[in-house]
Amino acid sequence: MKKLIAAISGLVLGALASTVIFADFNDNKNTNQAGTATNAQKVYVPFGQKDEYYLFASGGHSGQMFIYGVPSMRHIRTIPVFSHDSATGYGWDKHSKKMLGKYTWGDLHHPALSEKGGEYDGKYLFATDVGNNRAAVMDLKTFTVKDILEVPNTGGPHCAAFVTQNTEYMFLPTRFAIPFGHKFASLDDFKTKYKGVMSAVTFDEKKQKLSVAYQVALPPWSFDLSDAGKKISKDWAVMTTYNTEEATTEMEINASQKDRDYIVLFNWKELEKMIADGKFDMVNGMKMLDPSKHKGAIYLVPTAKSPHGVDVTPDGTRFIASGKLAPAMTVFSFEKAFRAIKDKKFAGEQEGIPVLDYDSVMEREVNPENALGPLHTQFDGNGFAYTTMFISSEIVKWNIKTGETVDRVPVQYSPGHASAAEGDTVSPDGKYIIALNKIAKDTYLSVGPSHPESMQLIDLSGKKMEIIQSAPVDPEPHYAQMIKADKIKPIVVYDKDEKRPDSVWNQKDTSITRKGNVVEVHGVALRSKFIFDGKAARKDVINVKEGDKVVIHLTNIDLDQDITHGFGINSYDLNMEVQPGQTQTIEFTANKAGTYPLYCTNFCSALHQEMNGYLLVEPKG
Amino acid sequence: MKKLIAAISGLVLGALASTVIFADFNDNKNTNQAGTATNAQKVYVPFGQKDEYYLFASGGHSGQMFIYGVPSMRHIRTIPVFSHDSATGYGWDKHSKKMLGKYTWGDLHHPALSEKGGEYDGKYLFATDVGNNRAAVMDLKTFTVKDILEVPNTGGPHCAAFVTQNTEYMFLPTRFAIPFGHKFASLDDFKTKYKGVMSAVTFDEKKQKLSVAYQVALPPWSFDLSDAGKKISKDWAVMTTYNTEEATTEMEINASQKDRDYIVLFNWKELEKMIADGKFDMVNGMKMLDPSKHKGAIYLVPTAKSPHGVDVTPDGTRFIASGKLAPAMTVFSFEKAFRAIKDKKFAGEQEGIPVLDYDSVMEREVNPENALGPLHTQFDGNGFAYTTMFISSEIVKWNIKTGETVDRVPVQYSPGHASAAEGDTVSPDGKYIIALNKIAKDTYLSVGPSHPESMQLIDLSGKKMEIIQSAPVDPEPHYAQMIKADKIKPIVVYDKDEKRPDSVWNQKDTSITRKGNVVEVHGVALRSKFIFDGKAARKDVINVKEGDKVVIHLTNIDLDQDITHGFGINSYDLNMEVQPGQTQTIEFTANKAGTYPLYCTNFCSALHQEMNGYLLVEPKG
Repeated sequence: MKKLIAAISGLVLGALASTVIFADFNDNKNTNQAGTATNAQKVYVPFGQKDEYYLFASGGHSGQMFIYGVPSMRHIRTIPVFSHDSATGYGWDKHSKKMLGKYTWGDLHHPALSEKGGEYDGKYLFATDVGNNRAAVMDLKTFTVKDILEVPNTGGPHCAAFVTQNTEYMFLPTRFAIPFGHKFASLDDFKTKYKGVMSAVTFDEKKQKLSVAYQVALPPWSFDLSDAGKKISKDWAVMTTYNTEEATTEMEINASQKDRDYIVLFNWKELEKMIADGKFDMVNGMKMLDPSKHKGAIYLVPTAKSPHGVDVTPDGTRFIASGKLAPAMTVFSFEKAFRAIKDKKFAGEQEGIPVLDYDSVMEREVNPENALGPLHTQFDGNGFAYTTMFISSEIVKWNIKTGETVDRVPVQYSPGHASAAEGDTVSPDGKYIIALNKIAKDTYLSVGPSHPESMQLIDLSGKKMEIIQSAPVDPEPHYAQMIKADKIKPIVVYDKDEKRPDSVWNQKDTSITRKGNVVEVHGVALRSKFIFDGKAARKDVINVKEGDKVVIHLTNIDLDQDITHGFGINSYDLNMEVQPGQTQTIEFTANKAGTYPLYCTNFCSALHQEMNGYLLVEPKG
Repeated sequence: MKKLIAAISGLVLGALASTVIFADFNDNKNTNQAGTATNAQKVYVPFGQKDEYYLFASGGHSGQMFIYGVPSMRHIRTIPVFSHDSATGYGWDKHSKKMLGKYTWGDLHHPALSEKGGEYDGKYLFATDVGNNRAAVMDLKTFTVKDILEVPNTGGPHCAAFVTQNTEYMFLPTRFAIPFGHKFASLDDFKTKYKGVMSAVTFDEKKQKLSVAYQVALPPWSFDLSDAGKKISKDWAVMTTYNTEEATTEMEINASQKDRDYIVLFNWKELEKMIADGKFDMVNGMKMLDPSKHKGAIYLVPTAKSPHGVDVTPDGTRFIASGKLAPAMTVFSFEKAFRAIKDKKFAGEQEGIPVLDYDSVMEREVNPENALGPLHTQFDGNGFAYTTMFISSEIVKWNIKTGETVDRVPVQYSPGHASAAEGDTVSPDGKYIIALNKIAKDTYLSVGPSHPESMQLIDLSGKKMEIIQSAPVDPEPHYAQMIKADKIKPIVVYDKDEKRPDSVWNQKDTSITRKGNVVEVHGVALRSKFIFDGKAARKDVINVKEGDKVVIHLTNIDLDQDITHGFGINSYDLNMEVQPGQTQTIEFTANKAGTYPLYCTNFCSALHQEMNGYLLVEPKG
């Protein structure tokens, strides 16, 4: 244990926290011209060819998801998830406005691709919001968000547990302990009134709905990262936790007092059974299980203090975690853990949860020379692990079974996560790993005091790891997943579904109708005009009265690839997009009398500029 | 004239508008391996080196500005301008919230770099908003927006006139005719009550403020693109206009009835004098000049119907415009125009504005074989023009003086604008041009029915133009400007200005004070903690009462490059960023009682995860 936690004094710790040790710049400078030329070709995707992988990078406090192509590292598209997006009208059209509800920003932390049998199946992408306690699901047929769920009793779900191997659950641990329902309670009552709730979230594919299956009331600690088991460990999941000191102020110092924190090891099949057996209380509409009352599903594994990532090996036999200021990675064995649980090899309890004996679960401590700050580990298919070192700014490649360090590559600078090709599956591809660096410094043309982050693509196919491309990225990817491109099969245009409510497919069927003070428009958009009322003298004009509620349904009847129409109303602060074959609805109150041009906001044809009409709002009395 | 406008019948026109003719795919496919390798090296910027040019691409209905590096074509950063940005807290902090006011989205069309003596000076970037009639200015020392101006009497300022050659003015023509002040008026009264107002906007560098110097009440036509004169034409500017038919519905057909539309040619020095002489009426607080009453500054030049772009040559002698469905570009001579004006060679008047005789101003019609849909022209420093052909999907290189076509390159697909290196200055660099393509089709990995746009980098240094890189881009760049990187000198951190109002630089000077129901916090952020009240037992906790107005001033006292702190409040829908040395303010009403974690939202150090505290809102009575 002593060896593991290392004798880093509090003072040294503080210094490390505020000092980034940069690897020697020249180590990775491609001074060799031939090397540069080779790398250039490795990442170049000429016109007519496509990238080999999609990279789904979380956009952090942008609330968005960033899609990149690998190996070109080109930013293909930003997809809004938890925040409004002026470009697509996400947050203005009726469906997305309702999904976003009262929230205007989000902090998207960890993306998780849906899995089947431990392989990414290319169907859905899940994500969590630390800012406003939400989970979301994106359909990869359309690359649009289908549902957003607000999770009660939770203070910042930092990380989805990457999904279980058949997408049964994703687990949302809470990062900041709070009283149930965010109720007011003095920090003096932290131990008794605050909780660190973990939520088990399920996705109903038919209904396209997320819901909370149950919650677990864990102690008021900070829960950080997590991973789901695989194969022999498939019914289990692991989470790191820090601030087991239960400090309520100056966490930087007070949450690092003890020598060890924990990995929470839990059996979700057992939890499922307990819930089915009624072992819960209802708390703010949630089924809440108390693990100190209902034992047998959750255990604590001691680990070096303040751990960050925890990662399950592709074969499901081990999980790897590290104190984030430590010099070592620790390999734990699921089999040893299962034996220890069976044999009740406990080293006491914490808040009513059994603590497993460290030596009974630990298999090996891996200590590369001068490496510091291990955060996250990814894998290839050949038995090697790749761990990011935040403080020593490098990625270390090591042998999972022997602990031997095989290779190291400096990155620029301070890597958080890394993302390997199919890296969280049971069969990683091993071709590429991308370092998600937190500090870009002067890597790119300066854009002022606010810098981009930096992602670096590393080629794993040679004998030595080699950085072959650096790509700037908007703030702020915390994690990313990389999936083989042919697994994702997006639609090209929406179906012409004539039964779709409020859709209209012929100009003659368009209409503007009034019921009381509600004006409802069933219109179409096509190259290069709007038709709102096919029978009117001016078919592209909407006449309403001041104070009317206006509901506009718009169907894009151009069924050709890439022919998107926008619909914006000048000075009325409204915009949405309608994809080919799609019907979208926008609602507003016409609270300003006057003459307002409306127009297509997304370039659609040679006569796009002419695609406009008017909203005329007749003044009251 | 007949030759110019070409005998394209209305029927053919309609077909063209809805059909994109794609150039032969194989023409540009780099089937040659050696060619691909060379191109790969041309665009590869290895770590330790930087891009040669900044590209400022307008983000269209995203309301943002996109910054790319050239030649790598890497997306370096998204800068929010007219829409909220969750990532940077733009729209949440006090300054930006006030600037954005009541508007939540924008449609950023044309960026314009500030100029001195006709050269980009690298100091400011201007932009306009078609959605909500605004102009903005970004400071390139910080890459942040300094001022946003709402322009009355205007319906969609489609294009800033790119600035005059010493940034005296940018001109905002209106795209959609409206009555003054968006007043309600029947479309039957279009001719009499609707206007197409052009605004002359100035920027006060000292006050960092935009304002409208004066407006001109033009006829109710659609004004589209514009350019400022240079050298001999420096006191002049040009704008294209369409719908001189004054159609009020089905513009696609009705705005293309006449054989010709106009270029508006005006002398802004003359307009300035007229305004100084009091030749205006006040309309909604604006000095409004009526050109039919006050003559001698504005003239109409006939051009092929429905023109889009108009571009002044680097030497300022000519302007080039084209009907956007025509097969020809037309070169007009400023000298000929000046003579025609002097000699009063008028072909009548339109709405009281003199129309110049076409043949007296036109120098040459340029008609490359089978080229169709000329939109915009850019320039190199060697006397060549580069015109985008929207319909035939290509860029045509031609000799300005002789009209001879020298080269053509197919692009993928449907280019709108193109942007050449220093292309709008008096001395373009000629090394690169970028085609801003509207249709990407299947160029990149699919991200669903909504596609990225596509920018293609073309190398101009060889004998033949060659596409060397394709880059996807979020919707939707309408125009871009490319500036030599060494002209821009951003700051690294904000000055430690101890006199800055509400800034605090020492932990002991932090405070939380109450005046009535207003709680004001003067706090600091540093690696890795917040200090709100250095004298309190819990320095990182803010205690307020339900209903209090809370004002938080936060100074980032880490004065190191790239150490940004965020400040988010969980469940309270609030976030902002504070750059090194910066002071930011956020205000809100604590209308929800309870316990709300607050945390640093921008990764800042090894102990970033521990940088958190609490907002405690005590319930009312």
